[in-house]
Amino acid sequence: MKAYNELEARFARLGALEGAIGVLDWDTAVMMPDGAGEARGEQLAVLQGLAHDMLTAAEIADLLERAEAERAGLDALQAANLTEMRRAHSQAGVLPRDLVEASARAGSRCEMIWREARAASDFTMVRDALGEVLALQVRIGEARGAASGLGVYDALLDSHDPGLSCAWLDPAFARVSRELPGLVAEALDAQARRGPVLPLRGPFPVEAQTRLGGKILAALGFDFSRGRFDASLHPFCGGSSGDARVTTRYDESDFKGSLMGLLHEGGHALYEQGRPARWLAQPAGRARGMSLHESQSLLVEHHAGLSREFLEWLAPAAREAFGAEGPEWTPDNLYREFKRVKADFIRVDADEATYPAHVLLRSGLERAMIAGDLRVADLPGAFNEGMKRLLGVDPPDDRRGCLQDIHWYAGIWGYFPTYCVGAMIAAQLYAAATAAVPDIPPSLARGDFAPLRGWLRANIHARASFASTEAIIGDATGEPLDPRHYLAHLRRRYIG
Amino acid sequence: MKAYNELEARFARLGALEGAIGVLDWDTAVMMPDGAGEARGEQLAVLQGLAHDMLTAAEIADLLERAEAERAGLDALQAANLTEMRRAHSQAGVLPRDLVEASARAGSRCEMIWREARAASDFTMVRDALGEVLALQVRIGEARGAASGLGVYDALLDSHDPGLSCAWLDPAFARVSRELPGLVAEALDAQARRGPVLPLRGPFPVEAQTRLGGKILAALGFDFSRGRFDASLHPFCGGSSGDARVTTRYDESDFKGSLMGLLHEGGHALYEQGRPARWLAQPAGRARGMSLHESQSLLVEHHAGLSREFLEWLAPAAREAFGAEGPEWTPDNLYREFKRVKADFIRVDADEATYPAHVLLRSGLERAMIAGDLRVADLPGAFNEGMKRLLGVDPPDDRRGCLQDIHWYAGIWGYFPTYCVGAMIAAQLYAAATAAVPDIPPSLARGDFAPLRGWLRANIHARASFASTEAIIGDATGEPLDPRHYLAHLRRRYIG
Repeated sequence: MKAYNELEARFARLGALEGAIGVLDWDTAVMMPDGAGEARGEQLAVLQGLAHDMLTAAEIADLLERAEAERAGLDALQAANLTEMRRAHSQAGVLPRDLVEASARAGSRCEMIWREARAASDFTMVRDALGEVLALQVRIGEARGAASGLGVYDALLDSHDPGLSCAWLDPAFARVSRELPGLVAEALDAQARRGPVLPLRGPFPVEAQTRLGGKILAALGFDFSRGRFDASLHPFCGGSSGDARVTTRYDESDFKGSLMGLLHEGGHALYEQGRPARWLAQPAGRARGMSLHESQSLLVEHHAGLSREFLEWLAPAAREAFGAEGPEWTPDNLYREFKRVKADFIRVDADEATYPAHVLLRSGLERAMIAGDLRVADLPGAFNEGMKRLLGVDPPDDRRGCLQDIHWYAGIWGYFPTYCVGAMIAAQLYAAATAAVPDIPPSLARGDFAPLRGWLRANIHARASFASTEAIIGDATGEPLDPRHYLAHLRRRYIG
Repeated sequence: MKAYNELEARFARLGALEGAIGVLDWDTAVMMPDGAGEARGEQLAVLQGLAHDMLTAAEIADLLERAEAERAGLDALQAANLTEMRRAHSQAGVLPRDLVEASARAGSRCEMIWREARAASDFTMVRDALGEVLALQVRIGEARGAASGLGVYDALLDSHDPGLSCAWLDPAFARVSRELPGLVAEALDAQARRGPVLPLRGPFPVEAQTRLGGKILAALGFDFSRGRFDASLHPFCGGSSGDARVTTRYDESDFKGSLMGLLHEGGHALYEQGRPARWLAQPAGRARGMSLHESQSLLVEHHAGLSREFLEWLAPAAREAFGAEGPEWTPDNLYREFKRVKADFIRVDADEATYPAHVLLRSGLERAMIAGDLRVADLPGAFNEGMKRLLGVDPPDDRRGCLQDIHWYAGIWGYFPTYCVGAMIAAQLYAAATAAVPDIPPSLARGDFAPLRGWLRANIHARASFASTEAIIGDATGEPLDPRHYLAHLRRRYIG
C-alpha cells in the first residue's frame, strides 16, 4: 500500500491546487476588478500549468505502476480511486504543458473581451479571440483523440463527461429533435386553452430577491458554513471542495430568472456538498461527470423547484419577500407563470419545454466549428438562423444571440450536450426517487428538501466517481438511461 | 542576455503564483465561509510550497550564475533586478520546503482558531496552536540566520524589511521610549487645557461609512479598476500585483476607526498601485520592505489624513454622509476629536501619540518569545503587564489584550517593529514632501491628493526595489533616517 498511499498524498496536493484554481475562477467572475484580468489570466495559466506538471510527473507514472501491483491489498474504494488516478494521469499526459497554459491564457483573455463584447452586443470585438480559443480546443481534442482513439469532438465530450459520445448522443438527440416541435406546439395550445396568467408586477428589489434566495438555499439544505451565495453576470456554481459557491443574477422587473438560476446552481451545490468528505480531494471523490452534475441542477430546478408542491411553500415566501398580495400570488398562478412556455432568446431563462432546442442548437454549432464546417466569423448568422429554425425567434442582437453564454469564450467546448443529457437523467432520477420515497412531493410543499436530498445523497452524491455514470444511473433507477422519461415528464407537465 | 531573459520569464511565473496566493489570502479574510478553513490552509500550503520549489530550483541557481556573466550587458534596472533575484533565491534556499509548508499550514490553522478565540476572548483556546507557529518561526529564523550570519530575530526582521536589524532599532527605539512618556503626558496636559471636544453622536450606519470610505479612496486617487474595497475583521491591504484590495472594519457608534483604517490601508494601496507597471511581477518591482510600506500607510493616515487641511474637505463630506449638522461637525472640532490622545487597549484604534507604545510592547514581547525568554502560556499576563506599565491601562480581557492582532497567530513575526520605523520614515518623508511641494497641504484642503501622490510616486513608489530603503530615504529627504522628525511631528501636533 506504500505506493498507493504516496499517490493519495500527491493527489491531495493536486486537489488543493485545483481548489485554488476554483476559488480564483470564482473571484474572476464575482469579485475581480476589470483592470486585473490580464494578471489573473497569468495566475490561472501558471496554476493550471503546475497542476498539469504535477499530474503528469514521471514519479506518478512510476507510482501508478507500483500501486497496480498492490491492487489486491486495496479495498473497493481505494481500487476505484486508483483507477480514477490512472485515468486522470493518462488524460493529462496526452496534452503538452504549453498547450494547457496557452489554452488557459486564451480562455481568460477571451472571457475578458467577451464581457465587453456582450455589454456592447458586438460579436466582432471578440471574434479573433474566440478563433484562438477554438484553434486551441481543436488541438486539445486532436491530442486527446489521438491517445484514446476517439474523434476530436468525442474526445472533448469525454473530457467533461467520461463515456459520453456522439454514438450515444445522436439517436437520443434525434428522438428529442423529432418529438420536441410537436410537443412544444401542443404545450402552447394547452397553455392557450387555459387562458392568460395573472401578471406579477414588480419592481422586485435585488435585496428582496437576495433574501428570498437565501431562504430557498437554506430550504434546499445548502450548508452556508461550506459555501457562499453571491451575484455574477452569469449564474454558476464554483469554488473548491468543501467551499461550494453559488451565484445568480438579478432583474428587478422579473424575479423568476434569479430564482430559477439559484435553484439550478443550488442543485449543483448539493452535489458538491454531498460528496464523501473522506474522498473530497481524491479523483474518485469527484463528481462523476457533467451530465450527472447537470442532472442534479435540473432536478432541483425543474422537477422539485418547479413542482406544484414546492410552490405551496414558495408562494407565501415570495409574498412576504416582496410585500405582495393579490390573486396573482397564489401557488396556482405562480405555477402557471413559472412553467409558461414561450420561445425566446436566452437559454438560461428558457422554460423547460423550449430549453432543449437551445442546447441542440449550440451542440450542433460547436460540433460544426470543431469540425471546421462552420467558421467563427459565420457564427452569429448561423446562431440566429438556428434560433429562427428551431424556435421561430430571431435574435435582434448578438447579446441575445451567440454572445449570451460564457462557455465557448471561456474555452468550454463539448459541454453543451451535457445539459440535455442531464435533463434526461434528471427526469429518470426524479421518477425513481418519488417512486421509492413517496413523501418527497408532500415534503416539498412544506419547503422540506430533506427526503429528496437524502435519496440523492445516497444514490448519486455519495457515489462520487466510484462507479460509471451508467452504473450509477442503473443502480439508482433500475434501467439504463432512456429519454422517454424526459419526454413523458414534459408531456405530463406541459400538456397534462 | 539569454540567461537574464529566461530568469525574467521564470520570475514572472513566480510572481503570478504569489499573486494567486495574495488573492486567496484576501479571500480567506474577506469571503471564505468558516467551514472551509482547513481546505484553504491546504491550498495555501501547497501553493507556498510550489513557489518555494520554483524559487529554489537548481535551474535558477544555474541561470543566476550565467546571468552574472552577462551583467555588463544589462541596463541599471535589469542589473538591480538580477541582484534582487539573487537575494530572493538565496533567502528561499535556506528554508527546506517541509518547513515552508508546515509553517504555512500552522499559520492558517492558528489563524482560524484565533478567530474563534478572539470572539470568545479566550487565549487558552489558541495557546497550543500559537506555540506551534512560534516553534516554526524560530526554526525559520535559525535557518535564515545560519545562512546570513544574523541572529534569529534579526533574520526575521530582515525577511520583512531587508537591512533592518536590532542594531539599528535598539538606539532608535530607546530614544522613542525615553521621550515618549513625557511627550504623552505633555500632550494630555495640552489637551486638558483646550477643554472638552464636542462629542459626535451616532449611530453611523455601515452603509453611510462605506459610501464615505469610497469617496475618500477616490480622493486619494485609488484606482478602482485595479483594486477593491471591502470589510474584514482586521483592516488590511492585500490582493496581488495590479489588484490592490483594501478593507476596513465598522463600528456604528464611532466612524473614526473605519475612516482611519481606510486611510491607512489606502496609503498601502497607493504604494502598490504606484509600482512601475513594467516590473510588477519582477523582484525589483516589488515594494522595498515593510517599513517603507508602513511609512506610506502612516503618511496617508496621520500626516495627510489627520492634517487640519484635509479636515476642511472631510468635515462637509462626513456631514453629508451621515446627514449630520451642528457645531460638533466643524473641521476644528473633528480635528480635535480625531487627534484626541487617550491611552487605550486597541493598537489599530490608537491615536498617533500613544501608538508607538503599542508597537514597542509587541516588539519586546515577540523578541522575548523568539529568544525563549517568554513562554507562550505567559503571554497574556506579560501583555497586560506591559500595557499597564507603558500606557497605564489594564486590558479587561484577552480580546482587548494579546488576542487583538492577527500577526503572531498568522505566523507574522519580526514585523511589528516596522510599524514604528514606518512612522519615523513617514514623518521624515512628509516634511521633505511639503518642503519640496508647498501646494500639498492646501490641495489636501480641497480633497486633492494629486500633489502628494505625485511626490510619493516619483520618490518612493516608482523606485520599488531598485535601491535600498536607506538610499530611497536618503535620496528623497537628503539625510539618513532620523527619529527626530517623528518626535518633532508629535510634539508639534499634540503639544503645539
